[in-house]
Amino acid sequence: MKTYFITLLIPIFIGCQPPQASRQDIRFVDISHEPSSSTSDIVLGSIAKQHQSDGKKLIDVAMSDTAGFLRLGEMCETFGPRISGSENLENAIDWILLEMEKDGLENVHGEHVMVPKWVRGNESAQMIAPWKKDMAMLGLGGSIGTPPSGITAEVMVVGSFDELTERANEAKGKIVLFNVPFTNYGKTVQYRSRGAVAAAEVGALASIIRSVGPFSMNTPHTGNSHYKDGVEKIPHAAITVEDAAMIGRMAARGQMVKIKLQMEGHYEDDSPSRNVVAEIKGSVYPDEVIVMGGHIDSWDVGQGAMDDGGGCVAAWQAVKLMKDLGLRPKRTVRVVLWTNEENGLRGGNAYRDAHKASLDNHILAIESDAGVFKPSGFGFSGTDDALAILQDIGTLLTPIESGIITKGGGGADIGPIMREGVPGMGLRVEGSKYFWYHHTNADTWDKLDQDEFNRCVATMAVMAYVVADMDERLPREKTK
Amino acid sequence: MKTYFITLLIPIFIGCQPPQASRQDIRFVDISHEPSSSTSDIVLGSIAKQHQSDGKKLIDVAMSDTAGFLRLGEMCETFGPRISGSENLENAIDWILLEMEKDGLENVHGEHVMVPKWVRGNESAQMIAPWKKDMAMLGLGGSIGTPPSGITAEVMVVGSFDELTERANEAKGKIVLFNVPFTNYGKTVQYRSRGAVAAAEVGALASIIRSVGPFSMNTPHTGNSHYKDGVEKIPHAAITVEDAAMIGRMAARGQMVKIKLQMEGHYEDDSPSRNVVAEIKGSVYPDEVIVMGGHIDSWDVGQGAMDDGGGCVAAWQAVKLMKDLGLRPKRTVRVVLWTNEENGLRGGNAYRDAHKASLDNHILAIESDAGVFKPSGFGFSGTDDALAILQDIGTLLTPIESGIITKGGGGADIGPIMREGVPGMGLRVEGSKYFWYHHTNADTWDKLDQDEFNRCVATMAVMAYVVADMDERLPREKTK
Repeated sequence: MKTYFITLLIPIFIGCQPPQASRQDIRFVDISHEPSSSTSDIVLGSIAKQHQSDGKKLIDVAMSDTAGFLRLGEMCETFGPRISGSENLENAIDWILLEMEKDGLENVHGEHVMVPKWVRGNESAQMIAPWKKDMAMLGLGGSIGTPPSGITAEVMVVGSFDELTERANEAKGKIVLFNVPFTNYGKTVQYRSRGAVAAAEVGALASIIRSVGPFSMNTPHTGNSHYKDGVEKIPHAAITVEDAAMIGRMAARGQMVKIKLQMEGHYEDDSPSRNVVAEIKGSVYPDEVIVMGGHIDSWDVGQGAMDDGGGCVAAWQAVKLMKDLGLRPKRTVRVVLWTNEENGLRGGNAYRDAHKASLDNHILAIESDAGVFKPSGFGFSGTDDALAILQDIGTLLTPIESGIITKGGGGADIGPIMREGVPGMGLRVEGSKYFWYHHTNADTWDKLDQDEFNRCVATMAVMAYVVADMDERLPREKTK
Repeated sequence: MKTYFITLLIPIFIGCQPPQASRQDIRFVDISHEPSSSTSDIVLGSIAKQHQSDGKKLIDVAMSDTAGFLRLGEMCETFGPRISGSENLENAIDWILLEMEKDGLENVHGEHVMVPKWVRGNESAQMIAPWKKDMAMLGLGGSIGTPPSGITAEVMVVGSFDELTERANEAKGKIVLFNVPFTNYGKTVQYRSRGAVAAAEVGALASIIRSVGPFSMNTPHTGNSHYKDGVEKIPHAAITVEDAAMIGRMAARGQMVKIKLQMEGHYEDDSPSRNVVAEIKGSVYPDEVIVMGGHIDSWDVGQGAMDDGGGCVAAWQAVKLMKDLGLRPKRTVRVVLWTNEENGLRGGNAYRDAHKASLDNHILAIESDAGVFKPSGFGFSGTDDALAILQDIGTLLTPIESGIITKGGGGADIGPIMREGVPGMGLRVEGSKYFWYHHTNADTWDKLDQDEFNRCVATMAVMAYVVADMDERLPREKTK
């Protein structure tokens, strides 16, 4: 996920967190939710009341499901990470399309999108003075490579863009290290995004950043980065929080640190990919569409399990469970798994362009791209009238504590159609761990939890289904 | 640390753990301990009463100290990891000896020890089918290398030695993966220690293990391993918990997984190292010695901050603070930083041999090698009479909650002299995180906490000082 992040998920570290130790072996099943008994105590909205029975069915079937979570694991581990332009991604898409057909979903197809193809190649970073250390590193998405013999230079450590500006005359011929501790994603990611430009502007040979994450076990984070016309392109990479902090302290102690960087990052020709589409056609208003999904591409590390395989499979499973229950809403529910969110947003843009004529009939767009952790509800961008209706529907989700609908939210992939007037919402989830794993080799299925995943499925299923099935059409701004 | 672990630190995951997120940037200073005010409410033992004033001074000065923790950081980050036979280790020892002289400690010297020199060289592990993945890995200490072109073979996944025995006829020509989840260190480490022998005995080409740790962020763990006379030596390496678990599930889904392993591990000639020794000479019984320390060598990854730089610097700082306070006990307090604990125990054995004549006058040996987390007290191996005395002294530590002395404990480095009759004890600390970092690139200073470190210093200082200064001599078994 990317653009919409700040409004969706400011990581909050409060209170008591369960130890993570056993997650990698044991799947916890939380049996504390008791939708059957507790629903009776909950005050339902008027729309919710009309869909109480279907809502309960969806929650019950989602919360006892095992297939969706296993399917996510199978996808993650059978195809690996799914960067745009990779065989892994297209193999995963082929498999998803076949599986969706098997599920009996309707109108299953891929929609052609040309995507950029950035290839990492081999890469390494070594501290060569004052002592030798092979450092864990990841080149940042879009970075150019170094010359084959690498770039070896003294490191200049700065703690901010301002410090780089103040000490600009020291940067020439050096490798600039942005040793910026994680505060929140929106702030800290600026160094990943713009660091290479800032370093090149003052004459640096290369730019490295402290990985954008609050906690590390020698775990570098990749992610997209940018160059600027007229400014020389220099290699741009992330080292771990540990190494960046260490080099920062070494420099503060007066030690001269030298690094050798070797990278082969480069772009190849754009490559064909697809947005994945599948539906349950509406029984009364088939042309009115609730679109729901995540992005199927990922970075080229880990398994893209949280970002965003989980969001994709949760949306898919939500629709599959409607199908299994024989629930056909009045309007069409469409799953879309967008391609190329991470380094181009070509999928989201292509969807907007391909469906331009029908965007007026896109009733609501729902995206999950903050990890499939325990959900609390949705952040919604649309009219107050629409918000009130969604809050009414949200009362159906009170038994699983995921019915809070607040103002503001969306998602990177649905951004293009939201900007055309489609009301949009993003699933909100517990956010304390997401940035531990984000864009790393540790974004793997074993970190996830079946119960939390199922809550996401239930939450998306109920919301999409009721908006699709309610008598009234979700209102939106008139003029667009 | 190694041998004594099971009795010292069975990791327990209970209750509420604070989020770790900010540790890498912020040092927490816990001001909740108030030795001054709360000591008055505590029931002190009779020996403790006689040393109440000195004990309080030591706790107060240790708990407000900043120099020790910074010195640990400086050592970790100036010299890097300190494997036996490395320049890093000997450079660190040179620096420590100089610093100890500056501190005004007495009889500062190194005691010659020849140590094994295992060299990792370059290494890599790549999954090459069904999809390609460069896997984080660490060769296990003592492993031989592969041929230069590597070993490429199908993986046979087993969950135990028993399963390997049952399926022995499948192993020939394969790479065996021991995908054994962490239960406790003593049990799970068996696969690291003996895996290569077991795999070779059934005809495998190489052996890989799931890293010995309860939680991973793509973080492989190294550690020592063994071959057996008469059984072919095969390369032996650790991959991450994530990758091992994934490959286990892939195999269970019927997928054939192939790995290419390239390793250069080898032994070179034994190399000179030193046990570091420094003292405060006793004022009345200078020949009676309380020896206290940790091991100065580490694995060749991370910084050896927890294992065992922290234990070394805590013991050193404990004695330095006695010196700074002008406290000279009746008996000698000797800091020893043993070399080569990790892959040979040559330091501990050499100390025993060099001091054989004076072991009867070694009153007590104290080791810290479980990380410098919040201490709870000590585990002691000796007579019940001695235990009662140490428990009496422990009451001085009640204000900082580290005065619990229980039966059973020691340390790998003091093991050789304990087996000669010297009473021994190991510092017990909160153990929930130690094995997250143990023998990994994430064993770095930034994970530690100044307040917890200072509690270790205070605890060791008070215990060593009072045993050294009390009127009676700590009793031990007569016959030895």
